[in-house]
Amino acid sequence: MNTPLNPPSLAEAINARGFSHAAGFRIVAVAAGSAEVSLPRRDDLLQFFGHFQGGVITALADQAAGLAVTSSLPAGRIGVTVEINVNFLSPADGSEIIARAKILKMSGSIGVAAVEVFTKKTDGTETLCAFCTATMRALDLPAEYR
Amino acid sequence: MNTPLNPPSLAEAINARGFSHAAGFRIVAVAAGSAEVSLPRRDDLLQFFGHFQGGVITALADQAAGLAVTSSLPAGRIGVTVEINVNFLSPADGSEIIARAKILKMSGSIGVAAVEVFTKKTDGTETLCAFCTATMRALDLPAEYR
Amino acid sequence: MNTPLNPPSLAEAINARGFSHAAGFRIVAVAAGSAEVSLPRRDDLLQFFGHFQGGVITALADQAAGLAVTSSLPAGRIGVTVEINVNFLSPADGSEIIARAKILKMSGSIGVAAVEVFTKKTDGTETLCAFCTATMRALDLPAEYR
Amino acid sequence: MNTPLNPPSLAEAINARGFSHAAGFRIVAVAAGSAEVSLPRRDDLLQFFGHFQGGVITALADQAAGLAVTSSLPAGRIGVTVEINVNFLSPADGSEIIARAKILKMSGSIGVAAVEVFTKKTDGTETLCAFCTATMRALDLPAEYR
Repeated sequence: MNTPLNPPSLAEAINARGFSHAAGFRIVAVAAGSAEVSLPRRDDLLQFFGHFQGGVITALADQAAGLAVTSSLPAGRIGVTVEINVNFLSPADGSEIIARAKILKMSGSIGVAAVEVFTKKTDGTETLCAFCTATMRALDLPAEYR
Repeated sequence: MNTPLNPPSLAEAINARGFSHAAGFRIVAVAAGSAEVSLPRRDDLLQFFGHFQGGVITALADQAAGLAVTSSLPAGRIGVTVEINVNFLSPADGSEIIARAKILKMSGSIGVAAVEVFTKKTDGTETLCAFCTATMRALDLPAEYR
Repeated sequence: MNTPLNPPSLAEAINARGFSHAAGFRIVAVAAGSAEVSLPRRDDLLQFFGHFQGGVITALADQAAGLAVTSSLPAGRIGVTVEINVNFLSPADGSEIIARAKILKMSGSIGVAAVEVFTKKTDGTETLCAFCTATMRALDLPAEYR
Repeated sequence: MNTPLNPPSLAEAINARGFSHAAGFRIVAVAAGSAEVSLPRRDDLLQFFGHFQGGVITALADQAAGLAVTSSLPAGRIGVTVEINVNFLSPADGSEIIARAKILKMSGSIGVAAVEVFTKKTDGTETLCAFCTATMRALDLPAEYR
């Protein structure tokens, strides 16, 4: 690209590709150190019992964590996941899931984020369905992505 | 259903629904206490850099862990994920990913599995791209699934 | 014992044995679903660089998580650790560490707690040095402990 | 120090301080990419039920992981723990625990190790009591430690 991606437009670019795009991830908010991403229910995102699949929940949490970390980095840097831990707390049986990430610590090129994932019913009630921590490391964006 | 699902057919049934089916998960092998599941590359399963997305890798690892645990349970019981931890070790840049799970321990209704995930190139070489541990608990299958 | 241990006295009993006692764990507060435990610095609790050792930090976090879960259980039940995940965020270089646990979810016999660990300097300032999630399961206390 | 610590002597130096020394950690073997450390039972290392305490088990696993990573680094570098995940599988009720670590991947300054922890009875039988993964990052040893 000819113009550098500053962090907000990088967040949009990250979200517009591959699985994020195909699954329908929606960026609700991104700020330096935090991010919120939501995902409406769709049959191809569910598991055996008809709830959101654990890997899909993890993907959404990971996206929120990555955007929270990336948005706190200087332009031209991106956070990639080193390790992720997810506790599944309640069935994700709503019409939507929402992942809210915040950075716990940036230290050199390592960032750690905590993510709460809520399942939201059509009546607007939210239930915490998963809790996640993710360790990210910051990389320089390869030239072809800048 | 009218006939009970014994563990192998339950594995097939689990894999034939929702995200597993839509993404194209393939059961390679299932035995009591172990399972292997593979997933061919497809554009809608990738992340920003064009490698398999972390949540998709987690979903495959989780499926393998769940099948390993479920296949060691008596008919009518299924393992669901309580917690999962994934270390991403190398870019999952092959034409396929393969998750190989084995149970570390079953203790009462709790099972723990370790999963190695490999990325496989078209020349057949495999590289360990992720390592996962998952904690499962065994539930009675609801009557409508038996 | 002749009298049942209700949860608060069980917390004291748990803390008065073995490593907890030898290391000097101090219960600051215990309520149903939360607990705070502190540990003053001592040379035999440190690592190579003179900060609190990671396993000692984990032990304190685990104790706080276990007390938070146990205190929410009926008398005669105790929470034991199934799995623990700790992110080390900053050097634990204060004169004391403090673990504050709260339950994220109790579901049947499984409880999940999140724990923040702070390092406290002699001037009273606290820094988040570790973040932990723990999965516990509830057991009946063996008769000899009741 | 006047003479540089090469990796084996660094391992000894790490193990000879603070909690490792006080608890009685014993280095059984260290090679580039692997390490084995053991710990004999002692009353002040146990939990409520008289088994090795979870944080003590974590400390031993962490030490083995750190030595495995550090021993694969050039002289003057040391691995410190970013994140650790431990699954407790069986009661650590033996007369000794033994942690065996091997590196899964070194990538730049990040290393990931898997650790099996066994509890050993006086008759020599070993049981897997915990399984751990740890993420480490390599630091330059401060000048005063070289």
